[in-house]
Amino acid sequence: MIRAGIVGGTGYTGVELLRLLASHADVEVVAITSRAEAGRRVDDLYPNLRGIYDLIFAEPDAALLAGCDVVFFATPHNVAMHTVPELLAAGTRVIDLSADYRIRDAALWSRWYGEPHASPELLERAVYGLPEVHREKIRDAQLLSCPGCYPTAIQLGWLPLLAAGKVDPGSLIASAASGASGAGRQAKIDNLLTEISGSFKAYGVGGHRHLPEIEQGLAEATTESVAVTFVPHLLPMVRGIHATLFARLREPAEGLQALFEEYYAGEPFVDVLPAGVFPQTRTVKGANRCQLSINVPQGRDTVVVLSTIDNLVKGASGQAVQCLNIMFGLPETRGLQQVGLLP
Amino acid sequence: MIRAGIVGGTGYTGVELLRLLASHADVEVVAITSRAEAGRRVDDLYPNLRGIYDLIFAEPDAALLAGCDVVFFATPHNVAMHTVPELLAAGTRVIDLSADYRIRDAALWSRWYGEPHASPELLERAVYGLPEVHREKIRDAQLLSCPGCYPTAIQLGWLPLLAAGKVDPGSLIASAASGASGAGRQAKIDNLLTEISGSFKAYGVGGHRHLPEIEQGLAEATTESVAVTFVPHLLPMVRGIHATLFARLREPAEGLQALFEEYYAGEPFVDVLPAGVFPQTRTVKGANRCQLSINVPQGRDTVVVLSTIDNLVKGASGQAVQCLNIMFGLPETRGLQQVGLLP
Amino acid sequence: MIRAGIVGGTGYTGVELLRLLASHADVEVVAITSRAEAGRRVDDLYPNLRGIYDLIFAEPDAALLAGCDVVFFATPHNVAMHTVPELLAAGTRVIDLSADYRIRDAALWSRWYGEPHASPELLERAVYGLPEVHREKIRDAQLLSCPGCYPTAIQLGWLPLLAAGKVDPGSLIASAASGASGAGRQAKIDNLLTEISGSFKAYGVGGHRHLPEIEQGLAEATTESVAVTFVPHLLPMVRGIHATLFARLREPAEGLQALFEEYYAGEPFVDVLPAGVFPQTRTVKGANRCQLSINVPQGRDTVVVLSTIDNLVKGASGQAVQCLNIMFGLPETRGLQQVGLLP
Amino acid sequence: MIRAGIVGGTGYTGVELLRLLASHADVEVVAITSRAEAGRRVDDLYPNLRGIYDLIFAEPDAALLAGCDVVFFATPHNVAMHTVPELLAAGTRVIDLSADYRIRDAALWSRWYGEPHASPELLERAVYGLPEVHREKIRDAQLLSCPGCYPTAIQLGWLPLLAAGKVDPGSLIASAASGASGAGRQAKIDNLLTEISGSFKAYGVGGHRHLPEIEQGLAEATTESVAVTFVPHLLPMVRGIHATLFARLREPAEGLQALFEEYYAGEPFVDVLPAGVFPQTRTVKGANRCQLSINVPQGRDTVVVLSTIDNLVKGASGQAVQCLNIMFGLPETRGLQQVGLLP
Repeated sequence: MIRAGIVGGTGYTGVELLRLLASHADVEVVAITSRAEAGRRVDDLYPNLRGIYDLIFAEPDAALLAGCDVVFFATPHNVAMHTVPELLAAGTRVIDLSADYRIRDAALWSRWYGEPHASPELLERAVYGLPEVHREKIRDAQLLSCPGCYPTAIQLGWLPLLAAGKVDPGSLIASAASGASGAGRQAKIDNLLTEISGSFKAYGVGGHRHLPEIEQGLAEATTESVAVTFVPHLLPMVRGIHATLFARLREPAEGLQALFEEYYAGEPFVDVLPAGVFPQTRTVKGANRCQLSINVPQGRDTVVVLSTIDNLVKGASGQAVQCLNIMFGLPETRGLQQVGLLP
Repeated sequence: MIRAGIVGGTGYTGVELLRLLASHADVEVVAITSRAEAGRRVDDLYPNLRGIYDLIFAEPDAALLAGCDVVFFATPHNVAMHTVPELLAAGTRVIDLSADYRIRDAALWSRWYGEPHASPELLERAVYGLPEVHREKIRDAQLLSCPGCYPTAIQLGWLPLLAAGKVDPGSLIASAASGASGAGRQAKIDNLLTEISGSFKAYGVGGHRHLPEIEQGLAEATTESVAVTFVPHLLPMVRGIHATLFARLREPAEGLQALFEEYYAGEPFVDVLPAGVFPQTRTVKGANRCQLSINVPQGRDTVVVLSTIDNLVKGASGQAVQCLNIMFGLPETRGLQQVGLLP
Repeated sequence: MIRAGIVGGTGYTGVELLRLLASHADVEVVAITSRAEAGRRVDDLYPNLRGIYDLIFAEPDAALLAGCDVVFFATPHNVAMHTVPELLAAGTRVIDLSADYRIRDAALWSRWYGEPHASPELLERAVYGLPEVHREKIRDAQLLSCPGCYPTAIQLGWLPLLAAGKVDPGSLIASAASGASGAGRQAKIDNLLTEISGSFKAYGVGGHRHLPEIEQGLAEATTESVAVTFVPHLLPMVRGIHATLFARLREPAEGLQALFEEYYAGEPFVDVLPAGVFPQTRTVKGANRCQLSINVPQGRDTVVVLSTIDNLVKGASGQAVQCLNIMFGLPETRGLQQVGLLP
Repeated sequence: MIRAGIVGGTGYTGVELLRLLASHADVEVVAITSRAEAGRRVDDLYPNLRGIYDLIFAEPDAALLAGCDVVFFATPHNVAMHTVPELLAAGTRVIDLSADYRIRDAALWSRWYGEPHASPELLERAVYGLPEVHREKIRDAQLLSCPGCYPTAIQLGWLPLLAAGKVDPGSLIASAASGASGAGRQAKIDNLLTEISGSFKAYGVGGHRHLPEIEQGLAEATTESVAVTFVPHLLPMVRGIHATLFARLREPAEGLQALFEEYYAGEPFVDVLPAGVFPQTRTVKGANRCQLSINVPQGRDTVVVLSTIDNLVKGASGQAVQCLNIMFGLPETRGLQQVGLLP
């Protein structure tokens, strides 16, 4: 039995880890921390977990966490980077769901996250946890950095095209939208139901923190220069990311459907939809799955890829568990066979 | 392996049965029927099931269904009653999620459902599938009639009080609310997002079909006459039932919390919340669970019980699977350990 | 032109006052205050007001406000009671949308609002602004206390029955539900879209601050003792209150529809729906209107009144403008003829 | 007083016309038709209109309509084109909110709308009712064709850039999203709350009927060839369109904010937001307004324009009333000063 700890367990990726791990045969959650809720029963905060866990939030404590085989950081950014070095030194493997180790260039990281990186020496060691790309490296990762939600949906949508050289990587356009759970469980007026229900808006148009991560990931798939125009939007709903990806084709489109089906053949969590079927976020709700659709409207020169995930599952906690399975030599689908909740 | 069939598989209780049974170790769905969608892949209609089932909707066919060990009817009312006799005669056990066998009095049934009952002789044989009340009878049931969604939430909320004689059964008041999935997957203007999103209303105030079922169930718990004023409301959301139940106390309230905790001790799917914690439908979303809260506002003479379920799970398909487990001698929780999807 | 000021203009009742007064021919908003947003343009915070107002939030300042003919307090409770005495002394009329002057008994007020009342001497002078009951007193009010949202919907629903002695006032039951805007524009986790969207719950079951106000108002309509069991619920939507009101009839119901129609004959903002038509919150969205439906389910001994308002309009800012019209001798409907926004 | 008739008054653009015209000083609605609801009171179908209109749905009747000064067609496409010639012949002016006269090329129209055009001779006479472009022609229009909702938001967003030659018109990309009211009030499973609430999807990716209309409108602003990749999406909400428009800049971006502000100077219903403020659909909800934001992310070579309207107002009925005002020589803002309903 793998003994797991969760740091920052009060947020939505924390409770989602608990939901997923409840059906995982090989993992036991032995510690969960929260400064704000220390001493409170987990199922008092999250009554959906009553009868399932007998956990109490603890103060973050290095010794407690070092006693785990693996520790998930479900914290906001700029937290994990202070604690991870100590845990790694103690031999505990770390799966960081935050942004702290996603960008390999410390200066670039600082520019987007607003302060110097606290453990830049680990950036090279951190493995980027997108299994469809880095499965082999993930096996041996001591420090696993989970991709962001938008970057997961967007990279999975473009990688086959870039790898095959089908599109111009210098003028990529991503119009994406996220449910409000992407903003986390924070007491901000901007996230009130009264502020966002029944409405839709773009945000971060001038520059969203996921942009450098997306460009870094895509750049690995091509030798050409990559430039993405990325506009995220906020959806009046809880879960789900939908990315609408535009790229200019280099030659008349042929065989793109087959290209995607081959690229993702054997991938348990990437589902290339039949031609003409468009994904909906609801069909992946609660499931660790990316559904993709490839289109060339009017047969013109622009390919449109639609990519959907549940931001809390394939975009965060599910992907983290998928990586854990790989890291610990378990079947990759262990604990991840939840069916999307529809309707 | 129990071979199961589903009649009327295109509706929401049908797809929910498929979702739940996907994680049930002892049941295989071998047949699913739909007149309208015969020939279509199930996962084409419900892409959340891609990769999970390899089923195709079939025309309803008695021979096909008679080859099953058990057949679920996930049909609208007034359908099952025509086909069930034949299946029972063939030795197939039936779990009917519709209203056809819920009311034991055929004349009463006709009054509420608008036509003569097609197999009234079965009304006495049908077992009412509320495990918390009829667990023993369910074991041997050939024809199992699943309770309605409102009746499940409401009976579970009042039964301990009635059984203990704590309240006056002659003036019960139930103000309940349901998500829109309770109305099924029917092309009606009244169920459009544009008609019900961002709004709330009562309906069926003059008389809802679940009223006689509720009164019938409650009457079994007391020797006194039962009368319920039942007002259902429509919530601008998909899943969930919340019942707010008012009853007049016969004597100053004492020990009601303990009364409920004892009454439901050992019940795997009824969760009496700690005093002062109010249930939310979201904490039972996707889970086969009823959460209850007992209150006596201002210490006056009215007890208020709050009861929540997911109408598609404990209010329909989950309860059906729970009954199947009992009928086939399996652990009652088999296939039903999904954690509520929160947020 | 009536010169109006608004204190606490950043909240939802503040912006709603601005929306309504934009079409009011006789009122000019000359001052709007907010400590937090002082110096910011109003239409920067609320871009729906661009081009309509040229206002800037100011620090609360007694001299500024005393220069107005009337000042609205759109503040949380426990604010107005500190400032109102000074304004009244300066001859400015006050319309308080908060709870500070709703309860005439200062000790009772303190029990529910948690601190001593700062200007208890004004409680007797304050006029309770429910025009359908107190129209004459409102004309001369210097200090007008606007009713709460639940109390407005609930009193309008029960008053005709109590006034006519048709029901037992000692066992009234109100099951009511509100959109999230009733909780105001406050950065609380409980009000996040991710916490309340797609869910429904009761709250304040042990005792909600609107209870004493409701009982006080109803008590004026009868010589008997009044007791209300009041359970509020939170709806996953922005605007609207729906109250489902249960009362025991003293004699077989007859003429209740006519009773209501007569009671509210000539009232511009109370609409008794035809028998059998149930109100929806969406038909009063954005409108200063209460829609009522009277029902006696099954012809039994319980009358069910359904009452809907928009909590921000007839439940707050619209009612405030209605009172202003009466106070200043204007036609009562001036500036209040917005049609409900449907769909 | 202008005597107006409405054909197809049961749909959402019909009830929205009634809402807007209720506050229009110069228009009286004297006839409203509906085959399905003939004989029913309008306010029985739409209780938000109780006390405001005393209208009854009538059978469509040429004589009835010919007695009007102006007739609005709030019908689905392929209806107006059969009746309009007769009305024009009778001297009645027509404002068609449907798609029947939007495309000037009858063959192109047929390809997208699936049948031969019934009155192709009128296509040239029809004036395209986008006042910001065709104000002069609108004055004298006998047959006014209201733009589609997407085309309104998209053209207003791109026209200043195209007119100034700032971008390449051959590779325009529009990622747009609409509330569900855009699909009308039709009993289709796809539009049920249970199918679209809490979810997001693209649709019509292969080709949406608004595409030729968009390209036709944009082509008027440039001598170059126009090609648009247009992907519409469905939002889980009622009202609102948000268009995210991408175009490649021809030269380094400078002065784009000023370009837009000048282009729309004096336009009463186009609001160029300050730099860095992103529009939300809620700030135009219920209002006849387009809000625009101009951005050049990362200072690269792609300009991103954000454009929002209420699809039922500036995208349909409000624009229709705006055109009526121009056609009848009234102030353009008459009856259109509703403030956006926020929250």
